[in-house]
Amino acid sequence: MNGERADAARNRAVLIATAREMLAESGTEKITMDALAERSGLGKGTVFRRFGTRAGIFQALLDDVEITFQERVLAGPPPLGPGAEPLDRLIAFGRARIAFMLENREIARAALDGRARGPAGPTPMTSMHIRMLLSRLSLDVPDLDLLAMQLTGALDAPLLLYTAQDANAPRGVAMGERLALGWDELVRRVCR
Amino acid sequence: MNGERADAARNRAVLIATAREMLAESGTEKITMDALAERSGLGKGTVFRRFGTRAGIFQALLDDVEITFQERVLAGPPPLGPGAEPLDRLIAFGRARIAFMLENREIARAALDGRARGPAGPTPMTSMHIRMLLSRLSLDVPDLDLLAMQLTGALDAPLLLYTAQDANAPRGVAMGERLALGWDELVRRVCR
Repeated sequence: MNGERADAARNRAVLIATAREMLAESGTEKITMDALAERSGLGKGTVFRRFGTRAGIFQALLDDVEITFQERVLAGPPPLGPGAEPLDRLIAFGRARIAFMLENREIARAALDGRARGPAGPTPMTSMHIRMLLSRLSLDVPDLDLLAMQLTGALDAPLLLYTAQDANAPRGVAMGERLALGWDELVRRVCR
Repeated sequence: MNGERADAARNRAVLIATAREMLAESGTEKITMDALAERSGLGKGTVFRRFGTRAGIFQALLDDVEITFQERVLAGPPPLGPGAEPLDRLIAFGRARIAFMLENREIARAALDGRARGPAGPTPMTSMHIRMLLSRLSLDVPDLDLLAMQLTGALDAPLLLYTAQDANAPRGVAMGERLALGWDELVRRVCR
């Protein structure tokens, strides 16, 4: 049983690493269940059991980078990680989240393909982290839970629009910087 | 040709009115393609051509009330309609939108059933209206388009959460009032 589990974990690691290589070489398009099986040297049945569908491959890739992101937030260097002032952490969090989402938007889009409902997304973690930082800001706001949901929406909505629609080319300032500056501005206004 | 179009429009009006009656009597559950055909006295083929699927019935109901809402915003009495100060209109808009979404959440949920992607929702109109009001506030904000998207997200996100999840019973203050107060608070903070 332990041997089986170890095998499963090793296969998963091999498949994720292989999918990453393929992604770096030629983007999402050429990643299929068959191509991943062939390139990894594992059987099609193994790939199918691991991921279920092609979208499942990208969901697994996304989960993988999401965990790394969460580790940076929870235990990485400040101002994203602990140790900085809550307002600076809030601004740094939005900035990092925007960069993360833009960096991984091809994977995110491919992970959504064929899913029945829209992006459940990483909103719960985002909302919880924003809520935690808001509580340290001593704001005179009666409903911090709601404010955290609102700011999560304010952070996610422009990103989702951009990720889903493959928006027009950014003009002047690059899109990531534009979104980061807008987040900075919003948070300072709300928290002053 | 004109006769055919007039027939189609009349059939549509009859079907919408019938669906509204059924909705008022017993909620969304008993509204099916067959039941609507029987009750309206129109053929199943007509119902199918009008709406395509059961979810299509609810989408049509939603479009119908959405138009009424937009008319109130564009030409109704202030502060929701024209004539009030932009900040008051912005606050009134969020409050009205929240009430509208909560009032129509059963329809909205039923309209989503089986749709491939998440709610496209009425976000474009919301975002455009918020953008228009922001432009009249003479805020010292470099990117009003982005601020409008952020505020749209801040308005929509808690509502979508509530609409999609059939949230827990509101505690103390009713949910609509809680969301309206939170919108008021957020907008005042952003616009001061």
